[in-house]
Amino acid sequence: MQSIKASIITIGDELLIGQVIDTNSAYIAQSLNKIGVEVNNRIAVGDTKNGIWDTLISTSKQSNVVIITGGLGPTADDITKPLLNEYFGGNMVTHQPTLDHIIDIFVNKYKRPLIERNSKQAEVPDVCEVLFNENGTAPGMLFEKEGVLYFSLPGVPHEMKALVDKYVIPKIQQNFKTPHIVHRTLLTAGIGESFLAEMISDFETTLPSPIKLAYLPNFGMVRLRLTGIGENENELISNIEEAFSQLKMQVHEYLVTDKDEPMEVVVGNLLKANNETVATAESCTGGFIGHLLSKHAGSSQFYTGGIISYDNRIKTEFLDVSSEILHTVGAVSKEAVEQMAIAVRSKMNTTYGVSVSGIMGPSGQTDEKPLGMVWIGVANKEKVFSKVFYLRFDRSRNIEVTATQAINLLRLLIINKI
Amino acid sequence: MQSIKASIITIGDELLIGQVIDTNSAYIAQSLNKIGVEVNNRIAVGDTKNGIWDTLISTSKQSNVVIITGGLGPTADDITKPLLNEYFGGNMVTHQPTLDHIIDIFVNKYKRPLIERNSKQAEVPDVCEVLFNENGTAPGMLFEKEGVLYFSLPGVPHEMKALVDKYVIPKIQQNFKTPHIVHRTLLTAGIGESFLAEMISDFETTLPSPIKLAYLPNFGMVRLRLTGIGENENELISNIEEAFSQLKMQVHEYLVTDKDEPMEVVVGNLLKANNETVATAESCTGGFIGHLLSKHAGSSQFYTGGIISYDNRIKTEFLDVSSEILHTVGAVSKEAVEQMAIAVRSKMNTTYGVSVSGIMGPSGQTDEKPLGMVWIGVANKEKVFSKVFYLRFDRSRNIEVTATQAINLLRLLIINKI
Repeated sequence: MQSIKASIITIGDELLIGQVIDTNSAYIAQSLNKIGVEVNNRIAVGDTKNGIWDTLISTSKQSNVVIITGGLGPTADDITKPLLNEYFGGNMVTHQPTLDHIIDIFVNKYKRPLIERNSKQAEVPDVCEVLFNENGTAPGMLFEKEGVLYFSLPGVPHEMKALVDKYVIPKIQQNFKTPHIVHRTLLTAGIGESFLAEMISDFETTLPSPIKLAYLPNFGMVRLRLTGIGENENELISNIEEAFSQLKMQVHEYLVTDKDEPMEVVVGNLLKANNETVATAESCTGGFIGHLLSKHAGSSQFYTGGIISYDNRIKTEFLDVSSEILHTVGAVSKEAVEQMAIAVRSKMNTTYGVSVSGIMGPSGQTDEKPLGMVWIGVANKEKVFSKVFYLRFDRSRNIEVTATQAINLLRLLIINKI
Repeated sequence: MQSIKASIITIGDELLIGQVIDTNSAYIAQSLNKIGVEVNNRIAVGDTKNGIWDTLISTSKQSNVVIITGGLGPTADDITKPLLNEYFGGNMVTHQPTLDHIIDIFVNKYKRPLIERNSKQAEVPDVCEVLFNENGTAPGMLFEKEGVLYFSLPGVPHEMKALVDKYVIPKIQQNFKTPHIVHRTLLTAGIGESFLAEMISDFETTLPSPIKLAYLPNFGMVRLRLTGIGENENELISNIEEAFSQLKMQVHEYLVTDKDEPMEVVVGNLLKANNETVATAESCTGGFIGHLLSKHAGSSQFYTGGIISYDNRIKTEFLDVSSEILHTVGAVSKEAVEQMAIAVRSKMNTTYGVSVSGIMGPSGQTDEKPLGMVWIGVANKEKVFSKVFYLRFDRSRNIEVTATQAINLLRLLIINKI
């Protein structure tokens, strides 16, 4: 069986000048991967006819499926639709169901007059199959040429996602017989990438050839991923499961989870399983730990709330950090974070409290307290524990790493490892 | 003058299976753009020899500068360095300053033995110029072939950024005479993309040809960008400034800022200019508003702190939302958010209070309160104002949009528009 390859093309000058970050491609790549389609490449091009045209030609030689997002909005910087019409040799016609939908949105929902710019969005090349976009005004389109499928989708993330799920994936499965791709991912904490690689080097050399191992390092945490591809699904799964069990045994001392899930989901699941709750007291992360704990559905089962004590006054008034602590050892100290964790847990009446206080940069350091110094505290009813970290990233990365380390420290307290 | 073109290649299977989102390319694109280099395309390829090799060949035909990130870590899934050595016809040699640096990091800093896997990172092709990476163990490399410059950089963001600033940009400026690219961006709120386009359609048709207008829509907010490119810097700036002034006048009713900055920076600057402060009371956003307000340097001047009242009990105990309110109109109500905004402002003794309570999904809706319904409140000493929104995105986008709308409502209160 031939493997099915895809290219993802993202259109928009904003990507090439770095004004926005492309998140659509990740969703499309994940969805294709689940059905056994390998992504050859992801290409971002500007709103220029030549750039888009050349990329269509080059990807059509490499891939069976080409997915294009962006370039379909109502305003004049969009050149994609006329270009596709020309590329596939069609004529523009009005798609009546889309026009009815646009009229409904503007006239009935927004109570605004329908302007030509909007009704024009219902025009499509007569050589495409329209993928009806119930969430927006720009229709998706499917073209076929010399056995290659081309999907053109709007760039608005929730519109794009709905069309991928409803049309793109089923159409690919109807048109191609795809192989199986299986990924198994685990997360480790507390060991660096190179030491981990040393530890499992024998395992790696004995891996059967269709299985690949990849390292995805983060600060103090490394994700390991096994990927296998093959025709026989059962054989593939059994091979990869065997290898994955061995891998888990080898790294068990550092294993956080054997699923592809972020740290906060691991901890959320532990808390839910134990019927336990947590409250947060954040200084330097300014709410980001609360955000991580609450961003996934179902978090109200374990996340009670928190105090963002950005100003020292709030540490004193809401978390009982004494002015003596603030004046002697300061807000970035073992004493301060331990008091914060104890106080937020007790005041919010939760099983655990987590606290952080640090210097995220780019300024605020002193001779004793360098940039990137951060104290993290965790507490339950019986004990309190704290640890200092010295980070060396920029402000936004320091905030992220601090939050993840704080949640990891909470995990260690929950499983009785500290 | 010939325009200088660049391609950005990002290496890593994790990008093609959608496991991680590429943020490096945006930084590189921005940096290139500032010095007048146009990015032709951004291409993500997997850890496969053929994919990387073919991409090097195709980009070398299109671009004067090729920037490669990723694929340089200490573990076995990295094949980039040997490939570059072969592609440029070199031999691997040890780069002594890098080896000394690696030894220093492991032996002196981490107090760990140096293993071969790490010392091997000091090996480089003898046909490259080493770009010394003081923040990590993988050196950057510069190759030249037939007039094209190839930069290979580690994928760790803060290491990559430092090498771009210190070596990549200066080397490009030494080797090429670049034209000037000028962007001017403004942000509007309260008018949709197509209505905005209608409003400024006359302006758009009279724009001189080297100036392009682009629309970057978001929920209830649209960013407009003018881009000009040319040899004569003074002429270019004067043309674009004139067009930008006209554009600002045309949209003044909806103008939030005439800079390329996010909403929370606009509001932070307003607060700093007025010597005013804000506190947050967040339910459904779980700390994300606090995070936005505190993620930029200097935020301690205006952001005092907040209460994350995720559980209703915290709304009552910390923000005095009466159980009568909770039992009659409920936590997602005008009454609840107004009380939350008033209470957090008063208890934290700030100029303003901002509050949110809503149903972010994927569940939790009732007959009266649909998914995506969110109340936002803002208060100062004299008044309180609240507004309901009906969002229709997924949970994570609903959280983002809610936070940005809350900060926009705060802006309207600060500038006396509500």
